[in-house]
Amino acid sequence: MQFQLTDELIKQVELFIEQENDKELKTLLDEFHYADIAEILDELNLDQAVYVIKLLDSETTSDILTELDEDNREKVLKNLSAKEIAEEVEELDSDDAADIIAELPEARQQAVISQIEDEEHKAEITELLTYEEDTAGSLMAKELVKVYETWTVAGCMRRIRGQAKEVTRVHSIYVVNKEEKLIGRLSLKDLIVAKSEQKIADLVKVNVDYVNVEEDVEEVAKVMAKYDLEAIPVVDENKTLLGRITIDDIVDVLKEEAEKDYQMAAGITGDVDSDDSILELTRARLPWLFLGLVGGIGAFLIMEGFQDTFKTYAVLFFFTPLIAAMAGNVGVQSSAIIVQGLANDDVKGSINSRLIKEMLLAALNGLILAIFLFFFVWVSKGEMNTAFAISVSLVAVIIVAGLIGTFVPLFLNKRGIDPAIATGPFITTSNDILGILLYFWIAKMILGI
Amino acid sequence: MQFQLTDELIKQVELFIEQENDKELKTLLDEFHYADIAEILDELNLDQAVYVIKLLDSETTSDILTELDEDNREKVLKNLSAKEIAEEVEELDSDDAADIIAELPEARQQAVISQIEDEEHKAEITELLTYEEDTAGSLMAKELVKVYETWTVAGCMRRIRGQAKEVTRVHSIYVVNKEEKLIGRLSLKDLIVAKSEQKIADLVKVNVDYVNVEEDVEEVAKVMAKYDLEAIPVVDENKTLLGRITIDDIVDVLKEEAEKDYQMAAGITGDVDSDDSILELTRARLPWLFLGLVGGIGAFLIMEGFQDTFKTYAVLFFFTPLIAAMAGNVGVQSSAIIVQGLANDDVKGSINSRLIKEMLLAALNGLILAIFLFFFVWVSKGEMNTAFAISVSLVAVIIVAGLIGTFVPLFLNKRGIDPAIATGPFITTSNDILGILLYFWIAKMILGI
Repeated sequence: MQFQLTDELIKQVELFIEQENDKELKTLLDEFHYADIAEILDELNLDQAVYVIKLLDSETTSDILTELDEDNREKVLKNLSAKEIAEEVEELDSDDAADIIAELPEARQQAVISQIEDEEHKAEITELLTYEEDTAGSLMAKELVKVYETWTVAGCMRRIRGQAKEVTRVHSIYVVNKEEKLIGRLSLKDLIVAKSEQKIADLVKVNVDYVNVEEDVEEVAKVMAKYDLEAIPVVDENKTLLGRITIDDIVDVLKEEAEKDYQMAAGITGDVDSDDSILELTRARLPWLFLGLVGGIGAFLIMEGFQDTFKTYAVLFFFTPLIAAMAGNVGVQSSAIIVQGLANDDVKGSINSRLIKEMLLAALNGLILAIFLFFFVWVSKGEMNTAFAISVSLVAVIIVAGLIGTFVPLFLNKRGIDPAIATGPFITTSNDILGILLYFWIAKMILGI
Repeated sequence: MQFQLTDELIKQVELFIEQENDKELKTLLDEFHYADIAEILDELNLDQAVYVIKLLDSETTSDILTELDEDNREKVLKNLSAKEIAEEVEELDSDDAADIIAELPEARQQAVISQIEDEEHKAEITELLTYEEDTAGSLMAKELVKVYETWTVAGCMRRIRGQAKEVTRVHSIYVVNKEEKLIGRLSLKDLIVAKSEQKIADLVKVNVDYVNVEEDVEEVAKVMAKYDLEAIPVVDENKTLLGRITIDDIVDVLKEEAEKDYQMAAGITGDVDSDDSILELTRARLPWLFLGLVGGIGAFLIMEGFQDTFKTYAVLFFFTPLIAAMAGNVGVQSSAIIVQGLANDDVKGSINSRLIKEMLLAALNGLILAIFLFFFVWVSKGEMNTAFAISVSLVAVIIVAGLIGTFVPLFLNKRGIDPAIATGPFITTSNDILGILLYFWIAKMILGI
């Protein structure tokens, strides 16, 4: 199994393409899983990738398409006719098929759909395309094994043999009544262990988890992770069974969410990766840097306002990067803990008790750091007064930074805004400015200047 | 299904406990999934939680224990006897059982194991406890459905009916030869669709993914996510089948990894959450703040060193927070992209080409920001020379910050160190100091002082 994407392998594939040695190329690629072939294609140029896609049979290439890097898939699809894309899509489960079609330009979507020969598949895909992004409907597949409560185990097994051929993996068998409403579920194991004359109605587990078709995918992920589910049925408001979501799609959702949050904390917006173009990366990074620049100009204006003090207490100005760094770091720590707690539904109790806890925590951290700083300044500069002023300011700055870091994500969350935007540059920048202002103000007061 | 943890519900549970109204309490809790009951218990005090655990039957409470918050579980287990814990553990799959026992103090582990009555279960748990943390062995369960290649479908179905009762979910049926070596797998679906007189050897899919028992769990997660697997068999170096890992455990691994990386980027070490004590949170946060303090002192020393040069250019000092912030932000952005790319095996090609790309990217971003800053300083201060010096320094600082942000995680990764430690405070602090040094040095050169 342990597939290794080596330079030799890619060179070998490129050579076979150049020689148009289709037989050897097919033999070579047939050894690999479609996800591995997708990795190889991601390394080839567009012409080479299209060559391979047109060479292999559509059962394999349809799966390869779903695994390709999004940018590369877009380019490859541009090089295929509507008819060719329709053939690929016929091989896929309805959810993967709908995902691929959804990425096409509007005009092409209709062209491809009209070329799909299987009428049932066409109707399923068309239905899936109607659901909004990031809802359960947009993630679900129509393929599932469904039985009616009135059937017997033996009848059930016969029908499952028929239905199961179309369904890649049978997780659960969903039991519906004659109005197609979800009643419960059965596992294949239950069926196998049961006697063939037993009625489904006697075996069905009615305590079944389900999600509404309009539910947010993050919520679906939370439910499935919490209850350790491998598949969950999707229903409409009348509890009519519409489809199912499987755990492998949820794994992808969790990974994407984690990457998005991580990037947001680092001041990167949009879904970029290290292989994107310089222009795409600039678009994702520049806005946050610009925010930092504006914050820096704010800090400049504050310091300019205090410049008269500079003549006698230049040393105060030399500690502004320290103050800004501490304010930023404490703010990011506090907000990260809150953002994560909110994501896990871990943050209970009132905002006030949170703020009091963070204040105590910041005070403790601040005090320890301030004592260290006090002795450093006292010993190195020999000015106890200055040392005292700087240290007291530091404690105050850290407490305020902690409170802002705690309050902002809680506030955003209450307003229905994703609190993750609060970590990273946003909190760093506002804490920088506020911290420096507070620092000069307190120091000035203590030094009596 | 939609379970809501409300204050009313918790008050109701607390009231029943106070009244020792066991009947009503049981009726109330029986409605809920064990994961929901665990959420309720996490809100109760220790005595109340232990009361509920002792009230409910061990089939439910064993599952509840696995879902409790780690700190709470530790406390509850302290209040149970070795015998009582052994009874809970008997109800669990081997992997969950081993996880619970592994959390106990050494001395208690032996006491609990010796009280387990089921000899096979005891042996399995003891085996699982021998595997190192974060290896496939530490995550796998011993429960699986195994058949021999020489069997027929009919014989197979009979045996599966027996084995399946002990296995919560049948994902795959693993086929072994008479030396217990993994040969391939079968799905339940394949068996159901097959004819009863067929030989397993004719049906088995030999192209089966597997992992070595000593493989890192992150690697296992990558393989399972890439190939959309719901379970993967675990083997030793002789390919002897030892156990299996299921996707629900991988979902937990992915979530933990994401949280760890997110916290690390925010300057928090150790696995803390917002409900932990102030002391635990301080221990996780203070070291990084201290690093920031040391960095700030470094920046102070640099600025002090330049103070004579700049008696006439105080304005330069007012821009140090801006310079430090930009250096920090660019560094964090660059390192975050690289860290994520490394985690996804997306970073291919040489370090040099990465550094060149990042240099161009940083130069582009830096130039845009510097032009803006140039006009701001020129217009507001009326000094074109100063404006020019500050802007040129900014571009240089941004380029160097980007290069460091790219190089450090790549370097750490080559050395086998987790590159995630490079994002966050580590890169911010070093970029702060270096950025300020570079800034003063270049400004001094341009201004000719």
